[in-house]
Amino acid sequence: MPTDPLSDHTATIESLKQQMRDFISERNWEKYHTPKNLAAAASVEAAELLELFQWLTPEESSHKPINDQRFRQAVGEEIADTLMYLISLANSLDLDVASTIAAKMAKNRLKYPPEKFRGHYERPLD
Amino acid sequence: MPTDPLSDHTATIESLKQQMRDFISERNWEKYHTPKNLAAAASVEAAELLELFQWLTPEESSHKPINDQRFRQAVGEEIADTLMYLISLANSLDLDVASTIAAKMAKNRLKYPPEKFRGHYERPLD
Amino acid sequence: MPTDPLSDHTATIESLKQQMRDFISERNWEKYHTPKNLAAAASVEAAELLELFQWLTPEESSHKPINDQRFRQAVGEEIADTLMYLISLANSLDLDVASTIAAKMAKNRLKYPPEKFRGHYERPLD
Amino acid sequence: MPTDPLSDHTATIESLKQQMRDFISERNWEKYHTPKNLAAAASVEAAELLELFQWLTPEESSHKPINDQRFRQAVGEEIADTLMYLISLANSLDLDVASTIAAKMAKNRLKYPPEKFRGHYERPLD
Repeated sequence: MPTDPLSDHTATIESLKQQMRDFISERNWEKYHTPKNLAAAASVEAAELLELFQWLTPEESSHKPINDQRFRQAVGEEIADTLMYLISLANSLDLDVASTIAAKMAKNRLKYPPEKFRGHYERPLD
Repeated sequence: MPTDPLSDHTATIESLKQQMRDFISERNWEKYHTPKNLAAAASVEAAELLELFQWLTPEESSHKPINDQRFRQAVGEEIADTLMYLISLANSLDLDVASTIAAKMAKNRLKYPPEKFRGHYERPLD
Repeated sequence: MPTDPLSDHTATIESLKQQMRDFISERNWEKYHTPKNLAAAASVEAAELLELFQWLTPEESSHKPINDQRFRQAVGEEIADTLMYLISLANSLDLDVASTIAAKMAKNRLKYPPEKFRGHYERPLD
Repeated sequence: MPTDPLSDHTATIESLKQQMRDFISERNWEKYHTPKNLAAAASVEAAELLELFQWLTPEESSHKPINDQRFRQAVGEEIADTLMYLISLANSLDLDVASTIAAKMAKNRLKYPPEKFRGHYERPLD
């Protein structure tokens, strides 16, 4: 029995999916949640996340989320918003997130073998 | 003991976080993964997800991921890519995703009480 | 002599570029305006533009900017913000926008010959 | 008479608008070009622009578009694509871009007086 159901060590992806299903159905918001709208919403929220960092130097972007609690909370909320729309989209498509990520990770491991890409990343158009 | 470690019913968020940590450290890619770059990457991947739906009608966006297996796989991969960058960002900030989502959901429940928002959503500027 | 220097019929792209140059240099903001930051800012503003439309049906998205003056103004401001960052990026790269657009349009005309694409658009992955 | 109709010094915004109107009507693509879809398309193209820069350091993002001609052309094409959708959106809303930008610039001048913001920018949440 999990002692803290809200920790990443105990929470399953299904528990997040169920939270989103309940939230949407309690409000009858299914009609807004077409896959197209959920993809747009995830994209908008991810941009709001980026907005928090857009004028920071790389160094500032590393230190500010540690040193500035209001900034850290804002970042957390935008990460949560983006994840929530992605999870809702997975719900609407009846998509298993864990196996989809595992399959993509396997593909990425083949595409970027460590011995070839250690310490550098092939940039587009290079 | 989970029979399928890759299903949403058994996979914890921590297991996704660990996969991402391993992938990055095996390639020494930490230097690229500033919070700013990860936020940009999540935003770019979410836009690639939106791109798949951008010219579809709402109805097409609901049917195509069911009827067209290549499309469904493409959608799954973009969802996975976006999630993977968000999870890496959570790793880099040492952020517990499950409790952050729970806190944001609690806020949203207060902001959108079901009895007031059932069946409709207050649009910006309305 | 233009009677209204602010109309699309009289304003050149150079006049927009000059406005942006002046605005930035009056504030010594050049250090923030790396090409990377300007690309991020344009992307964030374009997402704010999308946010205004994200939950609307296609029909609502056509009627609301005509019938709702506050909405129309909000849309105009987000279009302006996105354009302003793109023009600043063109400034920072010393890029001629008009000839770049003309070249891309010529490419698109070859890619999408009217006789083949009249009334329909080839979607990705179709 | 302009010696080069494609330069930013001679091209009016209206000339860009007319090019887009012709391109769309020659293909009967008006049905795809709802304001919502055009906003999504502009957002997707702006993210493709950002993608080119996402893993670069600030310094690399300044030098690469000068030193790498293939990269420079790719950046130009993404700027053009984003601008083209924004101009099409302005067309569909019958919006004068030049006066909309002038109004937003006037607002920004009041919001960011040079004497107060010279050399620094107020970041969100600061």
